[in-house]
Formats: sequence, structure tokens, C-alpha cells
Amino acid sequence: MDWSLSIDKAIPRPLRVIFRGVGQVFFCCNAVTGLIFLIALYVGGITAGIAATVGVISSTVAAYLLGFSEDDIDAGLYGFNGTLVGPCLFLFLENTPQLWLYVVLAAVLSTVVLAALMRILQPYNIPASTSPFVLTCWMFLVAVYAFDGFSRGPVLPPPGIPADIAAASVVSTEFAAFTQASAEAWYTAIAKGIGEVMFADSIIVGILFLTGIAITSLRGAFMAFSGAVVGVAVPVLLGADKTLIEMGLYAFNPVLTMMAVGWVFLKPSTGSAILALLAGILTIICQAGLASFLAPIGLPTLTFPFVLVMWMFLFATSKSKYWGNA
Amino acid sequence: MDWSLSIDKAIPRPLRVIFRGVGQVFFCCNAVTGLIFLIALYVGGITAGIAATVGVISSTVAAYLLGFSEDDIDAGLYGFNGTLVGPCLFLFLENTPQLWLYVVLAAVLSTVVLAALMRILQPYNIPASTSPFVLTCWMFLVAVYAFDGFSRGPVLPPPGIPADIAAASVVSTEFAAFTQASAEAWYTAIAKGIGEVMFADSIIVGILFLTGIAITSLRGAFMAFSGAVVGVAVPVLLGADKTLIEMGLYAFNPVLTMMAVGWVFLKPSTGSAILALLAGILTIICQAGLASFLAPIGLPTLTFPFVLVMWMFLFATSKSKYWGNA
Amino acid sequence: MDWSLSIDKAIPRPLRVIFRGVGQVFFCCNAVTGLIFLIALYVGGITAGIAATVGVISSTVAAYLLGFSEDDIDAGLYGFNGTLVGPCLFLFLENTPQLWLYVVLAAVLSTVVLAALMRILQPYNIPASTSPFVLTCWMFLVAVYAFDGFSRGPVLPPPGIPADIAAASVVSTEFAAFTQASAEAWYTAIAKGIGEVMFADSIIVGILFLTGIAITSLRGAFMAFSGAVVGVAVPVLLGADKTLIEMGLYAFNPVLTMMAVGWVFLKPSTGSAILALLAGILTIICQAGLASFLAPIGLPTLTFPFVLVMWMFLFATSKSKYWGNA
Repeated sequence: MDWSLSIDKAIPRPLRVIFRGVGQVFFCCNAVTGLIFLIALYVGGITAGIAATVGVISSTVAAYLLGFSEDDIDAGLYGFNGTLVGPCLFLFLENTPQLWLYVVLAAVLSTVVLAALMRILQPYNIPASTSPFVLTCWMFLVAVYAFDGFSRGPVLPPPGIPADIAAASVVSTEFAAFTQASAEAWYTAIAKGIGEVMFADSIIVGILFLTGIAITSLRGAFMAFSGAVVGVAVPVLLGADKTLIEMGLYAFNPVLTMMAVGWVFLKPSTGSAILALLAGILTIICQAGLASFLAPIGLPTLTFPFVLVMWMFLFATSKSKYWGNA
Repeated sequence: MDWSLSIDKAIPRPLRVIFRGVGQVFFCCNAVTGLIFLIALYVGGITAGIAATVGVISSTVAAYLLGFSEDDIDAGLYGFNGTLVGPCLFLFLENTPQLWLYVVLAAVLSTVVLAALMRILQPYNIPASTSPFVLTCWMFLVAVYAFDGFSRGPVLPPPGIPADIAAASVVSTEFAAFTQASAEAWYTAIAKGIGEVMFADSIIVGILFLTGIAITSLRGAFMAFSGAVVGVAVPVLLGADKTLIEMGLYAFNPVLTMMAVGWVFLKPSTGSAILALLAGILTIICQAGLASFLAPIGLPTLTFPFVLVMWMFLFATSKSKYWGNA
Repeated sequence: MDWSLSIDKAIPRPLRVIFRGVGQVFFCCNAVTGLIFLIALYVGGITAGIAATVGVISSTVAAYLLGFSEDDIDAGLYGFNGTLVGPCLFLFLENTPQLWLYVVLAAVLSTVVLAALMRILQPYNIPASTSPFVLTCWMFLVAVYAFDGFSRGPVLPPPGIPADIAAASVVSTEFAAFTQASAEAWYTAIAKGIGEVMFADSIIVGILFLTGIAITSLRGAFMAFSGAVVGVAVPVLLGADKTLIEMGLYAFNPVLTMMAVGWVFLKPSTGSAILALLAGILTIICQAGLASFLAPIGLPTLTFPFVLVMWMFLFATSKSKYWGNA
């Protein structure tokens, strides 16, 4: 909205670039939105907040030092992958002092990977989105498993489900019939679904994220909300694990897919809204498939289902007479 | 042949597009050939026939609704991946009423994936071929495994060998020496090898497929036949499992590779025929490798060995002074 | 150096192309350097030497017969992948007479894969480097596992660690504290690290390789040496297995990465030297990650960590105002 963009411009440049970097996690090139996201992250947990701050600063400074496009840096494009790298490594790895070093190194690498993917995708005019974050974190997770595993030989770690998620499965019996469950269960799952985009298992964080998106765009907020609804309703229909659904772990990917397809990258229309719905549903199937594929290696899917489905739909629509120009 | 193309043009447009879609499984843009293939599928099994019909219609209608190139749709290019999706899902998944929903959804997705890959490969002038069918079916297979597996945790399914294939291993002792086997064993393996391109474990279906190809092109039929011979002879020489050989499960990939390299995509010459033979032999090695790679996840190779080797040879020949223009 | 290039030009053309092919393993388009490498290979082991010779001749002749660019063939670009294929297959597969057939077939295939990847990477002006060797050898290794595995069902082979490496683990207790270890341990690890680029577990071979590189370029030799130091120091700091470190198995990838980034493909400067150091460190992390990922399939990483990191850095720097032109 106009007033928020006026504030955005009034913020001193270094701070603005960092806040926009956080905002770009949800495609919002808006420092006010980014600031709200950052506050929400600290509300969700002080460590996650600091990790995200270290990540966004490291990746943005790296982009500046490596001489990448000033316009891209200014828009926060070299910030959002670093933002995600921080909380991700703290969720999936043991909290040791040297983890801070890994966060800095991974955030720097995410900037290199982003520039590389931007170059590869340049002829197609397709965004790299969060793929650098996913690829970098996967590499660091398997590398840490590998170094830790040397003393005990080539034994693979158990699937990378953090302890708090595993513990939550105790409550799963409460959801014997999610379809008949109270409005509260739906409300929890939808809010957490938006929060889990940045690894926050918290209702209040999800609501703050949605508020921040709404400040930038109401259509964007509507798509994020619809994505979360799809990410709860479709797994319920397909009979997926109720605990995972309630934690929003099926919803964060369709949230991003529907925002990308229904708001950011295609002309806003009824047609693109229907396409976004289809893309959201397919994201659930893709996530289930990828999770099954990655389970033996002990890696989480992160936001790769969103990236794959978004790429498919953006490449495909560029061949369509309705959306593309090919 | 000329008479068949006259009939092709006389068939009403919607039917022609559907028949051509089936014909394109073997690179034949010819409604007469496609109709023979479809009849053969029904001969092989009524369910497989209906599944293929539902698939080809779904994927073609989706391409029309999404606004993709009319010329491509008319040539049946948006039909053959859907044709393959149908029988594939019925072979590898449990036959339930909701499977028909999956077939429609997967056929629609195969159209989106095809358009995306056509856009990616456009600068290189290389065909996507059956890769959308393979990628879509892999995603649906692992997704269904994942949803079914929630109650029993992250246990992986056994390698995806359908029951009828497993049962056939009883007869394997009969082939103590396939090299010295009767002409009948070779005849069976070669005919089934052509049939298995559309998942038909049947001699008569294979012969009907070959007849259909011959109506479009004798060189095409010769390449298909040669591919099946390579797909029997090479695994015999390398000492592969006799049952799999006799069922044609090593032959359907080289059939497609030799048709693509020796007939469709390179100028027909003695040189391209020799290259097709080399490509056919490498397809066997690639298939054995990929099968070994996919076994822990329980996925079949489908036609991906053909796709990989064909891509390698078409990309490579475009750099050659004999075939390419680079 | 000038005198070596004069000798290079004086060598009869067929021999020169073959020697240059061997030289290109370390990016040296210089027949004198290649001849020294080849002699070093024979010093390391007569079988490895012959296998490399068969490989380089097969891949170069295949490129000539398939009609690929004469200039590329002349520069030895169609030789180095074949050179690596030979000793690789002899290290990881059982030494049988038919293995020589596999070496020829794999070397020919590496030429086809190289031409294909050159075409794919052409719009980006990025080299394929040793990726054809890696992809071809992976395919042959899993294929041989698959054919050998038919009689005993879908059992996976143990991780592909050759017997001599396994035996070496007896000495690992000697390295209780590598950081405090004698200068000799460092010297051994660094020299073998350079030797292992062509699978030679030998100090003298490593020294001969470094000498050969120095004849072509002192900066190249400095980068190779620095890469080997990084490939020993970083794993020691991260607490990796001491035996693998001393054998140089962490060092051969950063050797190639630092040569590529710090000497061959970027403008030589202090900036590119720092970038090479960063790339070298990330190569170690990437190798640990990839090794962990490939362990269940029983495949070695070969030089793929180098290829991945080099690609990332070359794609990324093409977007930078300091190095690129995008």
C-alpha cells in the first residue's frame, strides 16, 4: 500500500535493503513488511530471529562484495535466501558455537548459488526463487551428517525430523477425524502453515506474516491464505498424517506456490487464480513424493516442492497464448 | 504411406487429434496408425485401453484449455504422454475408483510438464519426448507410496515389480541357455519388447504396434524391429535375467531410441543407422544403471533410459559436421 | 613455458593430440606436460597407464569419426575424459578381459556426452570439464553392479571403496593428532592429493604431475598446490577421517577447483585467487555432502564436487561486475 512504500523509501538505505531482503521471503519488496516479518521471527524465538538476521546480512554483504547487480541487491533479492538459511540450520542441526560460522558460510554460498541460477535461468526470464536456500541447506545438512558419521562408518542418520516435531505426534490421536474437527484445529493449521514458511511453529507468527503481506498486497495475502487452506484441506482428503497437517507442514509450500502463480509472476486474473489453485494442489502431491524420495537420506523437502511446481507452471504458461509470449 | 494419410485427413478433427496423440507414442503423426495402436491396447486388456483413452483425452483437452499451440495439439503432441500415463498408473498402483481421478490429474499435469520442457529445450531444438510421462508418473507413484505409508512410518515399498512379472520368474529355468533357445523364444521376446512400450505383455499387441508403425513408415518399423532385437541380444550377451529378457522388459527402451535416432530426428542415412545401433546398445547399459539406482526407492525406469540416451545423441550430433548445424 | 610449447609444436600431430588430451586433465593444452603425466601414470602402475592410454585414444578417435570440431580435437578437449575413464574403471571394477571392452565403450560414450554437454552449455560459455567422465563412469559402475546383481536379487553393493583403501585404515591410529603430525604426513597427503586426480595413490606420481603443470604455468602449479593444502587443512579442522585425508582423497577435488577458478577460467588477479580459496573450501563441504548422498548406492563422488562448485562459481561470476560481462 502507498503509505508503507513511503515509509520504505524513508528508511536509511542499508536498513532498507536488509528489511526488504526479509520481505522477499514472501515476494514483498517492502521494508515495512520485512520489518514486521523480522519482528515476528523474534517473537517466534530469539535464536531463530538472530539466525535470520545474521543470514540476511551475510548474504547481502556477500552479494555487494562479489560485485553483483546493485539493483537486485537494493530490491532485497540477495537477502531472502540468507534469511531462510539461518533458522533452517538451527532447526535441523545441533546448536553449537561453530553453527554460527556455518550459517555465515551457507548464507554466502546461497548468494553465489543465486547468482549462478539467475544466469542459468536468464534466457527464460524465470526466477530462481528459494532454490539457492534449498540447495545450500541440503548440501550443508548432508555434509554435517557425513563429518559426524566418520567415526561410526557409513551409517545413515534417521530422517531429519526435529525433536519437537516428533514429540508432537503424541497429540495425533486428538485428530481422529480432522474433517469433523473444530474450527480451532483448522485455524491453528492454517496460521501455522503460513508461519512454517520461515520454520515458525506458531500461530501468532503466522498471523503477523499474513498481516505483513497484506500491507504490501491484499491479493498476495488472499493467495497466501488460500494456499494455507489448500495445504490443510487436500492432505485431509488424501488421508495424510494429522499431526503434520496441524503443524502446517503440508501448507507452507502451497502458500508460496499460490502467491507466486496467483499474484507475483502471472497477470492477475480469474484464469491465473484457477491456475494457482491447480498449482497449489499439485504442490501437495509433489511434496509427498519428494519427501518419500528424500527420506532414506534423511533430508527434509524444505521449499523445493514449491520451487519445482512454480518452475513447471511458469515455464508452461510462457508457451500459452493466454499468459505467455512465446 | 499415402493412402493412410488420406484417411487421416478425412477423419473428423477431434477424433483425428486423439488418434494422432496415440500414434505419437511411436513418433507417428498419423490417425490410422494411432487407431490401430488404440485397438491393440484394447486387445491387450480392456482396462488398459480405457485408461489410455481417458489419458489421451484429458491431456489433449488440458492443452486446449491452457491455450498451448494449436499446431502442436493438432499434431497429437499433447496426447502421447497422457496415453502412457493411463496404463502406467493402472499397472503400478492398486485398482481403486479414485485411481481414475489420479489418471486424469496426472494426464493434465503431463501436459503442463510437456509445455514447460518444450520451453526449456526450445533454444536447442530438442524434443521433450516421453520425459513428461516419466516425471509425472514417478511423482504420482512416490506420492501414493508416501500417503499409503503414513500409518506404517517411513518404510520403503519393495521394488515396483508388478505381481504378474514376479510370477513369471517361475518359467526362468526354461531359459538355461537363451542363446541356444528356440526361434520361438526370440520371437516372443522381440514382439513383447515392442508391446511393452505401452505396458502390454502380449505378442499380438506387439505385432499390431509394428504393423501400425509400418503403415506410417517402413524405415520406422525396421528401426523398431532392430531396437527389439538389440534389446534381446545385448542383455543375453551380458548375462541378464532371462525372464525379464523374454518379457521384453529390456527391449522397449532401445525400440524407442533406435526409432528416434535412426528414423525421426536425424537425416536417414547409413551413418545415422550405425549411430542408432550404438545408441540402442548404450540404452541397455543406461537402463541397467538407472534400474539399480531407482531400486531402493521402488520406482521403475519407465522410458527414461530412452529419453536420456536420445537427448545425449541429439545434443551431441548437433555439434557434428555430419548431422548438425552448430 | 615457451620452450615446452616449441617442443609441443614439433611433435607429430597424432601423438601431439593424444599427449595434449592427457595434459587437459589438469587444463594443460601442452603435449610436453601431457607426456610427463602419461609417464607418471605408468610409474604409478602399468595397468593404470595402459588403461589411460586406451581411454585417451578411444575417445579422441571417436570424436574424429563422429565429426566433432577439429579445433577442439586438436586442443585435446576430446581426450581428457577418456584418459580418466580408463584408470577409474580398473580401480572400481574387477579386472577381467572384458573390462578392456568396457573401457573402450565408456571412452567413446564420454565423447558423445561431452559433445552433448558442450551444446547445452554453449549459450552460457561454461566448460563441461570432467562431467562427461563422471556421468559415464557412474552409469557403467551401476550398470555392472546391476548385471552382476541379478543372481542375488536387488541387494546393493557395499560403498565403492577399493580394497587397498580399506586396508590402509589400519594405519589410521598413527594420526591421532594430524594437526600435530610431522611435516612428513602433510607432505604425503599433499602429494598424493595431486596424484589422486588420476587415481594414483603415490607420492612420486603427485610430484611428477605438479612438475608437468609447472612446465605449462607456474600460477597453475601454485593453485594446484594450494588446492592440495586446502584439501588437507580443512578436513583436519572439520575432524574428518585421518586415513582418507592422508591418502589425498579430500584433496583432489579442491586441486582442480582452485586451478579452474584461480588460473584457467577467470582473469588472474588477487580477487580471483581469494575466490579460488573460497571455492576450494566449499568443494570440501560439497564432497562430504555428495559422498553421504551417494553412499547408499555405492558410488564414489569422483570429481563431481569440483564440477559442481566450478559451475556455480563460473555461472555466478558471469553476473559480477568484477569478472563477468552479463
